[in-house]
Amino acid sequence: MHRTRIRVVEDALDANNTIARENRRDFDRAGVRVVNFMSAPGAGKTTLLERVVGRLDGVRVGVLEGDVEGSLDADRLAHCHVPVVQLDTGPGFGGECHLDANMVRSALPELPLAELDLLIVENVGNLVCPAEFKIGEDVRVMVCAVTEGEDKPLKYPLMFRTADLVLINKIDLLPHLDFDVEKLERHLDAVHPGVARLRTSARTGDGIDAWAAWLSGLVVRERAVG
Amino acid sequence: MHRTRIRVVEDALDANNTIARENRRDFDRAGVRVVNFMSAPGAGKTTLLERVVGRLDGVRVGVLEGDVEGSLDADRLAHCHVPVVQLDTGPGFGGECHLDANMVRSALPELPLAELDLLIVENVGNLVCPAEFKIGEDVRVMVCAVTEGEDKPLKYPLMFRTADLVLINKIDLLPHLDFDVEKLERHLDAVHPGVARLRTSARTGDGIDAWAAWLSGLVVRERAVG
Repeated sequence: MHRTRIRVVEDALDANNTIARENRRDFDRAGVRVVNFMSAPGAGKTTLLERVVGRLDGVRVGVLEGDVEGSLDADRLAHCHVPVVQLDTGPGFGGECHLDANMVRSALPELPLAELDLLIVENVGNLVCPAEFKIGEDVRVMVCAVTEGEDKPLKYPLMFRTADLVLINKIDLLPHLDFDVEKLERHLDAVHPGVARLRTSARTGDGIDAWAAWLSGLVVRERAVG
Repeated sequence: MHRTRIRVVEDALDANNTIARENRRDFDRAGVRVVNFMSAPGAGKTTLLERVVGRLDGVRVGVLEGDVEGSLDADRLAHCHVPVVQLDTGPGFGGECHLDANMVRSALPELPLAELDLLIVENVGNLVCPAEFKIGEDVRVMVCAVTEGEDKPLKYPLMFRTADLVLINKIDLLPHLDFDVEKLERHLDAVHPGVARLRTSARTGDGIDAWAAWLSGLVVRERAVG
């Protein structure tokens, strides 16, 4: 039974990868770099997005919002004057716990790809399944809030191992926490040695410029290559 | 295709419910009340458990730990002098994102049920799938940390709707956050009117006695009925 289950999951991931490659081809054709943006619930993804989209000078950015239910995050981003498309992960069964390539594909017709350089896809808040499903992204950025404890890389290794950039967020709260950032970074290096990381606070703005520069770099590199 | 997928999920949930009922029957037979303990990653479940297990006077408590990978949480609880059984949700595919009835069933032989009044099952940190899978529990307790923002009940309604008690945790951080507890409680009542709630801080110990009393009440009620 366990073996059957593994086969079912493998088949599902294979099918997903096929669609992810199609998405990626469409994004490449339009010259759009895509970021799969992930974290646990409440780590600060939406606030970080609100902060960064205005600082990407010369980069035309759009956002795809994946919510289990409602359009709260899309509504928050609506005032940022960038194209925001809401992806509803579907009612029933408590909603989906991750975005998959097919859900993203279903949103492509609504996205003005020809007018974008960068698309940031805000995934469902979850440290497990979103890491397993490619959506056609170029890079993965994940947020780890310092309020979550130093052990998260060890407990959710696939998420941290497949991230291209880790934002260590809510650093404004460090004086009020029993949290050791160096310990978190050691755990981070244990599962993904040397992975790029930035310390950020969506609240104070710390680190946002560095993140904006990292994101802009994706597009600049693309232009240099293309 | 979407319809097929829904049928597959429904079948999986049906099969899970059947096993959950068997678990429940075994727990009932042994006179053990079972708590399904859930939250987002890093909300403070393990620390809350460390704090509460020593305060359940006269209640023989055991813990079942569900981790995606490793035994960090079980190790932390080992010094609490209560039976702790580690449930590995399995390698591959980044691990499981929730416990299901069959995983819990596989741990039953390792649990000293005859020597317990209360079993607390620490689920995988995730606000979506754990809410969908019954494991044979009597009640569900969930933790919502104030660092996660006030919107979580609206974004993960099934989790909040099926909780019997919500622990609003990390309240020691309130002075340092832009967080409105009344707003969170309004959102809570919007998805689950009047649900029981307690404000806690695993760090300062605030609210832990009240939580211990709530848990002890589950066993006392059982004794009164039995």
